[in-house]
Amino acid sequence: MNLGKVVGTVVSTRKEQSLEGLKLQLVKYVDEHGKETGAQVVAVDTVGAGPGEMVLVACGSSARQTTATDKRPCDAVIMAIVDSWNVGDRTVYRKSETDR
Amino acid sequence: MNLGKVVGTVVSTRKEQSLEGLKLQLVKYVDEHGKETGAQVVAVDTVGAGPGEMVLVACGSSARQTTATDKRPCDAVIMAIVDSWNVGDRTVYRKSETDR
Amino acid sequence: MNLGKVVGTVVSTRKEQSLEGLKLQLVKYVDEHGKETGAQVVAVDTVGAGPGEMVLVACGSSARQTTATDKRPCDAVIMAIVDSWNVGDRTVYRKSETDR
Amino acid sequence: MNLGKVVGTVVSTRKEQSLEGLKLQLVKYVDEHGKETGAQVVAVDTVGAGPGEMVLVACGSSARQTTATDKRPCDAVIMAIVDSWNVGDRTVYRKSETDR
Amino acid sequence: MNLGKVVGTVVSTRKEQSLEGLKLQLVKYVDEHGKETGAQVVAVDTVGAGPGEMVLVACGSSARQTTATDKRPCDAVIMAIVDSWNVGDRTVYRKSETDR
Repeated sequence: MNLGKVVGTVVSTRKEQSLEGLKLQLVKYVDEHGKETGAQVVAVDTVGAGPGEMVLVACGSSARQTTATDKRPCDAVIMAIVDSWNVGDRTVYRKSETDR
Repeated sequence: MNLGKVVGTVVSTRKEQSLEGLKLQLVKYVDEHGKETGAQVVAVDTVGAGPGEMVLVACGSSARQTTATDKRPCDAVIMAIVDSWNVGDRTVYRKSETDR
Repeated sequence: MNLGKVVGTVVSTRKEQSLEGLKLQLVKYVDEHGKETGAQVVAVDTVGAGPGEMVLVACGSSARQTTATDKRPCDAVIMAIVDSWNVGDRTVYRKSETDR
Repeated sequence: MNLGKVVGTVVSTRKEQSLEGLKLQLVKYVDEHGKETGAQVVAVDTVGAGPGEMVLVACGSSARQTTATDKRPCDAVIMAIVDSWNVGDRTVYRKSETDR
Repeated sequence: MNLGKVVGTVVSTRKEQSLEGLKLQLVKYVDEHGKETGAQVVAVDTVGAGPGEMVLVACGSSARQTTATDKRPCDAVIMAIVDSWNVGDRTVYRKSETDR
């Protein structure tokens, strides 16, 4: 998985029928310090992530191992909202209490 | 999935038989601002995308999760035509009404 | 899939038994203008591509969706020889008549 | 697989239910000299790796070939803790005895 | 597949049980001229490659299409030892007779 930040949403009317009703989030990948790396992905959101939240994205066939994405042409899924992460003894990111 | 722009078409007569009749589009990937990243892919088009349209491309085994591409040696599929996307509160891209 | 140019051949005597008899081509990837990108791949050739020809390469599990590569440890296959491609209204590449 | 160093841990309360109880480690990839390459991954830990340890990470569908990750939306797994590696005749890395 | 050179070996005692007995080789990828690209992979060796040998590595689910790696958390396998390759009419690499 990779760490990323939800920065936007993608809207599509004309698409593979099996994707109807799925929310597509635009995610910018971040490094271990929470800084954007420049890479991005559009991922199906199965956990209700909101704009600005740090998330984990699973790619490839692993993105289809959820009820929402099973057997669908989807290669990226947000499968977790990140509460916090640390590097060594230092907490790099902690979601604000009010956001939880 | 990744955002891309359809820029051309690839024609091939001599190919794996299972790919007969499939349309191959040349897609340049774009970043969250709609700017080309330099990377590209040739994807099977299952949604009827036209030149200049912004699309979503699914790669890997996920590209085979459509009726058209099932069990075929295809690792990239256009599975959605993008209407619009936003970054934060700003709409970065909106397909012109006449194109829809 | 990605566009590439067949530039050479790889010979191997000692290999996984299931790969016996398969032709391994060295392919340099090209961008939408036909210029080499620097990246390369060694792909099983199922369509009889020759040196100098532009081809399409499918990677990952999709490379195993041919009779020749099914259930084999092969992650790249040439599944099409390219006749031509265009970017916008301009034909970037067209295979010479004598080569077809 | 790729060599990496465990540098931290990621905590997530809201996630795909199938991922409950799995430990998510932040791993920085290293080159053959043990130097960080800049790339990273968040991997499920099935072998009990601790901070600072050198590990091997398997990605993609291969990350699901463990009891802990089977059929889960997980695309990276720590499947080995590295004791040592060599480049030619030189031992580049050896885990300290006290750590084993 | 990609061309690579075996440069070392990785030793691991604590690992997924299904990987017991498999040899892990450190492989540096090379370009079409045989020059290292900087990228590397740790691959299970199913063909008995030795240090300094040029090999082909298959990645992803294709790495599991051998008896040794089937259903194991392994995403890279050495499936061939390279005898020689050419670019155009020029032989770039030929394994020395004494090594075969």
